[in-house]
Amino acid sequence: MFQEYDVIVVGAGHAGCEAAAAAATMGSSVLLITMNMHTIAQMSCNPAMGGVAKGQIVREIDALGGQSGIVSDRTMIQFRMLNLSKGPAMWSPRCQSDRALFAQEWRNILEQNPNVDFWQDTAKEVIIEDGKARGVKTSLGIEIRSKAVVLTNGTFLNGLIHIGEKNFGGGRTGEKSATGLTEQLVSLGFQAGRMKTGTPPRVDGRSLDYSKMEEQPGDENPAKFSYTDTKPLAKQRSCWITYTNSEVHEVLRTGFEKSPMFSGRIKGLGPRYCPSVEDKINRFADKDRHQIFVEPEGWDTVEVYVNGFSTSLPEDVQYAALRKIPGFENAKMFRPGYAIEYDYFPPTQLKSTLETHLVADLFFAGQINGTTGYEEAACQGLMAGINAHRNVHALSPFVLKRSEAYIGVLIDDLINKGTEEPYRMFTSRAEYRTLLRQDNADIRLTEKGYEIGLADELRLENVRTKIRETGEIIDLMSATKLSPAEINDALEAMGTAQIREKMSVAHILRRPQVSIDALIRSNLTVAALLANYAEDSVHQAEISLKYDSYIEKEMLLVEKMNKLENLSIVDNFNYDVVTSLSFEGREKLKRTRPSTIGQASRISGVSPSDISVLMLFIGR
Amino acid sequence: MFQEYDVIVVGAGHAGCEAAAAAATMGSSVLLITMNMHTIAQMSCNPAMGGVAKGQIVREIDALGGQSGIVSDRTMIQFRMLNLSKGPAMWSPRCQSDRALFAQEWRNILEQNPNVDFWQDTAKEVIIEDGKARGVKTSLGIEIRSKAVVLTNGTFLNGLIHIGEKNFGGGRTGEKSATGLTEQLVSLGFQAGRMKTGTPPRVDGRSLDYSKMEEQPGDENPAKFSYTDTKPLAKQRSCWITYTNSEVHEVLRTGFEKSPMFSGRIKGLGPRYCPSVEDKINRFADKDRHQIFVEPEGWDTVEVYVNGFSTSLPEDVQYAALRKIPGFENAKMFRPGYAIEYDYFPPTQLKSTLETHLVADLFFAGQINGTTGYEEAACQGLMAGINAHRNVHALSPFVLKRSEAYIGVLIDDLINKGTEEPYRMFTSRAEYRTLLRQDNADIRLTEKGYEIGLADELRLENVRTKIRETGEIIDLMSATKLSPAEINDALEAMGTAQIREKMSVAHILRRPQVSIDALIRSNLTVAALLANYAEDSVHQAEISLKYDSYIEKEMLLVEKMNKLENLSIVDNFNYDVVTSLSFEGREKLKRTRPSTIGQASRISGVSPSDISVLMLFIGR
Repeated sequence: MFQEYDVIVVGAGHAGCEAAAAAATMGSSVLLITMNMHTIAQMSCNPAMGGVAKGQIVREIDALGGQSGIVSDRTMIQFRMLNLSKGPAMWSPRCQSDRALFAQEWRNILEQNPNVDFWQDTAKEVIIEDGKARGVKTSLGIEIRSKAVVLTNGTFLNGLIHIGEKNFGGGRTGEKSATGLTEQLVSLGFQAGRMKTGTPPRVDGRSLDYSKMEEQPGDENPAKFSYTDTKPLAKQRSCWITYTNSEVHEVLRTGFEKSPMFSGRIKGLGPRYCPSVEDKINRFADKDRHQIFVEPEGWDTVEVYVNGFSTSLPEDVQYAALRKIPGFENAKMFRPGYAIEYDYFPPTQLKSTLETHLVADLFFAGQINGTTGYEEAACQGLMAGINAHRNVHALSPFVLKRSEAYIGVLIDDLINKGTEEPYRMFTSRAEYRTLLRQDNADIRLTEKGYEIGLADELRLENVRTKIRETGEIIDLMSATKLSPAEINDALEAMGTAQIREKMSVAHILRRPQVSIDALIRSNLTVAALLANYAEDSVHQAEISLKYDSYIEKEMLLVEKMNKLENLSIVDNFNYDVVTSLSFEGREKLKRTRPSTIGQASRISGVSPSDISVLMLFIGR
Repeated sequence: MFQEYDVIVVGAGHAGCEAAAAAATMGSSVLLITMNMHTIAQMSCNPAMGGVAKGQIVREIDALGGQSGIVSDRTMIQFRMLNLSKGPAMWSPRCQSDRALFAQEWRNILEQNPNVDFWQDTAKEVIIEDGKARGVKTSLGIEIRSKAVVLTNGTFLNGLIHIGEKNFGGGRTGEKSATGLTEQLVSLGFQAGRMKTGTPPRVDGRSLDYSKMEEQPGDENPAKFSYTDTKPLAKQRSCWITYTNSEVHEVLRTGFEKSPMFSGRIKGLGPRYCPSVEDKINRFADKDRHQIFVEPEGWDTVEVYVNGFSTSLPEDVQYAALRKIPGFENAKMFRPGYAIEYDYFPPTQLKSTLETHLVADLFFAGQINGTTGYEEAACQGLMAGINAHRNVHALSPFVLKRSEAYIGVLIDDLINKGTEEPYRMFTSRAEYRTLLRQDNADIRLTEKGYEIGLADELRLENVRTKIRETGEIIDLMSATKLSPAEINDALEAMGTAQIREKMSVAHILRRPQVSIDALIRSNLTVAALLANYAEDSVHQAEISLKYDSYIEKEMLLVEKMNKLENLSIVDNFNYDVVTSLSFEGREKLKRTRPSTIGQASRISGVSPSDISVLMLFIGR
C-alpha cells in the first residue's frame, strides 16, 4: 500500500516538522505521520518563538537551512530583541506568533516539499529488523517500511492530564494520547521515565481590563529571525504585564489540598524554570507577587494566553484566583490550565546524532528526550532529520560542537549528562557564549548547512558576502583616522572623552559609549565609508571590533578543548580492560559510550582522574 | 465559577455555531461548549456549501439573519449556480470552500459577538429541574447553569469509527467521542437510535494526474449566498471529474468480506443519497462506472477530497481501488475513508420549535435529529437558537410553515414523519417549491428575521427596496410597449417569432426564449427603462412575470392548506376521548402531539379519515 520511505517521522510538532523538512530537503523520501492533519505544528503552549538562548537556537536552525525562523517571521505579530542593554552574546530575538497562522504556514511549507508525504494515523510500534528501525506499525494496523525512523511524540506517549483531583488520558487537552510505543521500547531494553509539564488557562481578551496593566509593545524597528529575505513586521500587537498579589495567592492556596502536584498524584518532574503558579507561591513564600505576561493569540482572535499562570489546581480555584489579578476582575476562561504527565526516554541512551544506541536508524527528538521548549524541540528535530538522512545514504554523522552552536551544547548536555527534569536552554549552559551569538549564527553554520545539502546556494552567497564585507569594514575602520576637529563634538555628545590627535574609527568605536550607528549619524567620513555596505555587515564588524578581546579569549579555550574533542574513542572500546577507572566512571562510560575524550570529560560521574587514565590508555 | 447563561449550546459545528450566533444576536447570553477550541466549525465532510435544495436553505438562513451565507461567501474558492437550465425553482447556489478559512471565519464571527462566551469541555449531562433544562454538567465535573440548552452533538455521541474489520471510538477521525449524554437522556425516557455516515479518503493533490480528468471551473460570473454586501469571487479554483470503472469495482469487491457494512458490524442506517462506493457498486451492479468529484480543500493546500468515494473498506483495498481510477494511478492518501456510527434521537420527540416534548427548554439540532448535511444542520441550529432565546424571554414560538421555507419543510418532516435514515433535503420534499426559490428567500423571510431581532435594519431596507423596485419594474414593463420595428430583429436573433403589433415588454418577456438580460442588451428602450434598478430587482421581476401562473397556482394551494394549519389543537388535547380515531392514528397523534390539524395530516399513520374525525371534534 505504501512505498518504502527513506525516513518516517512520527509526530508533527516543532521537532517532527523540522525533521521531515530537513530530511526531505536533503533528498530523502519522507513520510510524516500525524494523529490529525488539522493539528500539524499546533503550538501546545504559548504563542511565541525565541527568547533568551532560545532565540539564538532559532537563528541557528535558520542558518543551517531549517524552517522555524522563516515560519516565525511570516506569522509573527510582535518582535522584540531582548537584552539589548547587555553584551551582544545576550541579545536574544523573540516574537509573538499568530497561533493559527503558524500552524498553517508550517503545513504549507511541508506540502510544498515534493519529498514529504503525509499520513494521518498513530504509530504503535517501530518495526525492528536486525537491530535496525525499518518502519512503523500504526493503530490502523498498517505496516509502513522505511530505512530510518524519527520519533517526536511530544507529550502524547501515555499522556495523562491533571486538573485538581481529576485526571484523564490525552496528548493535549481535547486530543487523544498515544499508547504502545513506550511499552514496545521498554520491552526492547530502553529506559523510560515520566515527566510533567503544564499550561495556563486561556482567557477571553474581551473580558480583560487592559487599562490596569502595563503595555509591552514590540520593538520600534523590529528585526526578525531568518537570514533569508522574510519581511520584518510593519504593524504589531502589544502584550500586557500584570502581577499576582497576596489575594491571588491566598485563593490559590485554598486549592493546594486538591493539587495533583502536592498530593503526589503527579510523579513526573516539571520544568524548573517554567513552574506552575502554585509551585512559585509555595517555593517563594516570601515573594508577594509574580509577573503575569498576557499574550494575544493572534492578529484577530480574542483568545489570550496567561503566561506565568500555569496551574493544575481545580478549575474553580483557577477561576477565583485569576479574577483577583488586576485587569482580570471579570475574566472569562475558555479553558482551564492543566498539567500533563508523559513518557520520556532518558537521553543518555542516544548518540550525538540523536540515534539510539540500542536500535540503529532509530532517532528521538523533542520532549521524548526530556527537553522542554519549542526551540529545543525544533533543533533536535532538525539534527535528527539530518542524521536520519545521512544514515540512509551512508554518510558520516553530522554533529555540532559545543563551541559551534547552542544546538551542540544542547545535544552534548543531553546525551552526556541526561536530565531528570525537562531540559531548557540557557545562555549559561554554553561555555563559549560570546562566540554563540544570534548575530553570527549564519557565519558559524550556513557553510555547514550548505555542505550537507540543506542550506541553499543563496544562503551561502549571502553569508559569504557578509563575511567579506565585515572584513573590509574592519580594515577600512582600522585604516581611516578621524581628526579631533571632525569628531570631538560628537564624542562629547555621546558622553565620552574628546581625542587629542587623530585616531582610527576602529579605535574610537571600541569605547563602550560609542556605537557605529551614532558615528554614522554624526560623522560624514564614517557615513561615506560605510555607505555601500549592508547594515548587517556593519553591525557584525562593530561587534567583532568591540568584543574582539573576549572573542579571542574564548577561541583559545575552544582550541584547547578541541584537542580533547579530537581524541576519538572507538565505538566498541572495552572499558573493562582499563582497570584503574573508578567504578562509577566505568559504569557511566559504558552506558554513555562517548565518542571522544572531550565528550567523556562531560559525563557526570566521570572524574578528571578517569579522563587522565583514559588518555594514557589511548596513547597520550 | 460561571455566570448563569440564557442559553448553553453544546457543540460548535454548523448547527451549534448558528444556534449560538442567533441566540446571542437576539440578546441572549450564550455559552458555546466545544470539545476543542481549535475545531470550531470544522467541516467534517466535503469542503463545500449549498447544492440543490441545500443552497436554498443557506439563502434562507441568510435571509433570516444567520451567518452561514456570509461565512460561505467570505471563504469560498469556487461558486456555481446549479440547474440554470431548469426553472428558477431549481436554481441552486453551491460553493467550494477553503476548509481552514471556513472554520476561522466562523470562529471570528462568534468571537466578535459580545454575547457569546466559549468553554472547552465535553457536556456529560443536562441539568434538569422540574422537567426543564437548566444547564449542563461537563466531563471536567463542572456544573454550568442556563435557562435553555441546545444540543448539537453531530456524530460525537458514542461515535464509533469503522475501517474494514477495525473499529474504535471517535467523534471524527483523530478526535475523541462523547459519552454520557445519550445514557442520561435514555434514562429520562428518550428514544435513541444509531445512524451511520461515512467519508472518503483524503488524497495528495500532487500525486494526481489532472490531464486525465474533466475540469469543472466555477461560473464565469459567480454569484454568492448572502443578501448582504459580501463580495463575489474574483478568481476561482476548479474541481475535477473522473469515473470509477470495472477494475476499480473489482478491487473494491475483494474487500467486501471485511466490510463492516456488509458483515452487519455497522447497525445504523446510512444516508441513502450519499452512499458509500461499495454500496453503489453493490446496489447498482449493472452500472459500470460512478462519478468521482475531485474537490480541492482550499486555496493553497494540496489536500484533495475524493467526493463519491466514501468507503469503510479496509484501507489497503481503498488504496488499491483508488489507484485504478483514471488520474489516480499514483495517488497518495493522507488518510483512509471511514464509516462512523453515532447516536441520534428520533425527531418525532420534538416540537416544531425543536424543543423536546419530554424536557422543556431542551433543544436538539443537527445530526442528533437524524439529519445529514451541513445546511440541514445549520438551519436547525438557527431555529433552535431562535426558539431557545424566545423561550428564555417568554416569547411565542418562531415556526416557519412548509409554504414559507425549506426550513419549514425540513422541521415539519422531521417532527411529524421522523426518519429512519439520515434525512437530507431535496426540492421534491417541498410541495411549494415554485415559491421556495433561492432568489426570493429574502422576500419570504427577512421581514420575519427582522421582527424577531435577528436580521438587522440594513437587511430589512435592502429587501424592502427590492420588493418596491420589483413592483415598479413589473408595472413599467407592463406599461411599456415595443413596436415590431424596435424589437423584431432581436426576437429573431433569440429564435422566437416576430411581433406584428406593439406589445408590452412584460408580454414579450413571458416567452421562454426571451430573457431580460437579452432584452436589455438588444433594446435601448428596455435598457433605459431599467437603468436605475438593481440587477437583483430586475431578475426578481423577470421571474415573477415569467412564472406568475405557476406561482399563483401554488399560492392557492398554500391558502387551502393554511386553513388546516390555522386549526389549532391544544397542547394537552386528550385523544383518548375521540373514540372514532383509528388505533394507529391515536397512538401516533399522542406521540407526536401536533399543534395544528395541518400538522396532524402529515403524520405517517394518521389517515385522512382520522383528520375528518378530528376536525369534526374540534368543531368544524
